[in-house]
Amino acid sequence: MVVYDLIIIGGGPAGITAGIYAARQKLNTLLITKSFGGQIARKAVGIENYPGFEEISGLDLIKKFEKHLRRASARSDGHKIDIERDEVGSIKKIGRIFFVSTKTKHQFQSRTVIIASGADPRPLEVPGEKEFLGRGVSFCTVCDAPLFSKKIVAVIGGGNAGFEAAIALSSWAKKIYILEYSEKISADVENQERVKKTGKIEVITNVQPKEVKGEKFVNSLVYLNGKTEKEVNLAVEGVFIEIGTQPATSFVKGLVDFNEKDEIKVDPFTGQTSCSGLFAAGDADNVSYKQIVIAAGEGAKAAISAYEYLQKF
Amino acid sequence: MVVYDLIIIGGGPAGITAGIYAARQKLNTLLITKSFGGQIARKAVGIENYPGFEEISGLDLIKKFEKHLRRASARSDGHKIDIERDEVGSIKKIGRIFFVSTKTKHQFQSRTVIIASGADPRPLEVPGEKEFLGRGVSFCTVCDAPLFSKKIVAVIGGGNAGFEAAIALSSWAKKIYILEYSEKISADVENQERVKKTGKIEVITNVQPKEVKGEKFVNSLVYLNGKTEKEVNLAVEGVFIEIGTQPATSFVKGLVDFNEKDEIKVDPFTGQTSCSGLFAAGDADNVSYKQIVIAAGEGAKAAISAYEYLQKF
Repeated sequence: MVVYDLIIIGGGPAGITAGIYAARQKLNTLLITKSFGGQIARKAVGIENYPGFEEISGLDLIKKFEKHLRRASARSDGHKIDIERDEVGSIKKIGRIFFVSTKTKHQFQSRTVIIASGADPRPLEVPGEKEFLGRGVSFCTVCDAPLFSKKIVAVIGGGNAGFEAAIALSSWAKKIYILEYSEKISADVENQERVKKTGKIEVITNVQPKEVKGEKFVNSLVYLNGKTEKEVNLAVEGVFIEIGTQPATSFVKGLVDFNEKDEIKVDPFTGQTSCSGLFAAGDADNVSYKQIVIAAGEGAKAAISAYEYLQKF
Repeated sequence: MVVYDLIIIGGGPAGITAGIYAARQKLNTLLITKSFGGQIARKAVGIENYPGFEEISGLDLIKKFEKHLRRASARSDGHKIDIERDEVGSIKKIGRIFFVSTKTKHQFQSRTVIIASGADPRPLEVPGEKEFLGRGVSFCTVCDAPLFSKKIVAVIGGGNAGFEAAIALSSWAKKIYILEYSEKISADVENQERVKKTGKIEVITNVQPKEVKGEKFVNSLVYLNGKTEKEVNLAVEGVFIEIGTQPATSFVKGLVDFNEKDEIKVDPFTGQTSCSGLFAAGDADNVSYKQIVIAAGEGAKAAISAYEYLQKF
């Protein structure tokens, strides 16, 4: 069985950048991902902070990233990057070799691994959320906004993601509530001003969601006002959940150290985890700020570190 | 006198990215740089490892970065980024305010500073080097290669920069020597293969340069072969020096901690230096791998950190 030099887990900015660097170093590489894009593919508004592109949609940027990866792979002679469309189920290390199993039960071997599996949307964990998923409840504004044309919807979460979701929804929905758990919203100044300009977004703070209600589709959201302690039944036909993410790292439990947010702890100079030969990059690790250009930079670091580790293997 | 929220020193990938992020947070920002581009502007071959651009010249990439910065600035209402075309001479901190003086004796004040001044080419420090600068000795292949059409030239340095300089020179020069001080070259596999393919580049190791000689222009390089201990007089009409860089950080001596390479020590999670309110990003700091996408990521980190610091100012 082939033993790869490197297995990269994840197809977002960190994983793709790691792949571009690995191809240029002619490492025999396997990239495992269900799809390309990671959180970018779900991004509701244009991206304006990846340097070099003044404004670009998430899908267009990820297409450019993927094309770049394929070209780097094609140019690396016999060392092209294999791509496996799957999710990783588990990783074991036996001796110095990693055994990576996918959910469809394929197993691959490698001398190094980069975990760039990113993060998944964090659920509300209230009654009705799972039940009405796809019937009014959504974790992906860019996918679902057009379904809510002329409707009243709520966005849960007063951070940048919530504000950007509301801005994107304002092209379709009649009225949008942004509901924030705490007293203060955390979205940045630019997003706050853009929300104001739409004229159809109302921000409510101290909102503790209790239940998503409906019949065939969602028809209301029940929440407790944390200040007045009154229960409110807000009539909405859509509930977009934007309360942050959780690292997609469960498959590596037991092998590396985590912080209290379930992020993989890395040496931020190199991406090295507590397990020798295993690196992490992007939103799966404990690098504080979750930004595309930062994730890409960490992906490059991890690939160079893996290359250096292999020189002494 | 106006007190800026943020002064960014440097106009390479780290400084520009910091500027894009600062504009989006509507910080009153001044960016001080002699020119845009940093080391990218001197890069001899196309850039193939900045994700999103499969292949782009250094000048084209930096134009895109600069345009992105200007657009982010124009869109930030009254908070646009001022640009001062100058070099910084010194920085002082009095109370919580930074005083930044340029070489032309202008003084600016700010609550935070990001040092993204990058690195300058490291000189050989042998006789003749300074004397023949611009008359055969060059630190910028992309600037000077066409002047050496059909000539014999030497590139000092067997790292990636040296190999890439030699590849760029191969379109012009008749014959190119790559001269490496140590026993082993450190350029990556891809660059080694590209050098081979040109058919006109000869790599010589164990080369200890002693003197650049000439009359009006360079006509030879004298070196000691470190193995045989013999002195060699190599007939060349050009000497391109690519032996690495040194951080351009002398103006901040005394204010922050450095490592032994004169790189500013930072917390790599945030870009924070040992001086509160002062951040660093890119090749001026001790983040190990010097790559465009890594520098850009560190620039974003530093700008977000500066913003967070200002919230508690």
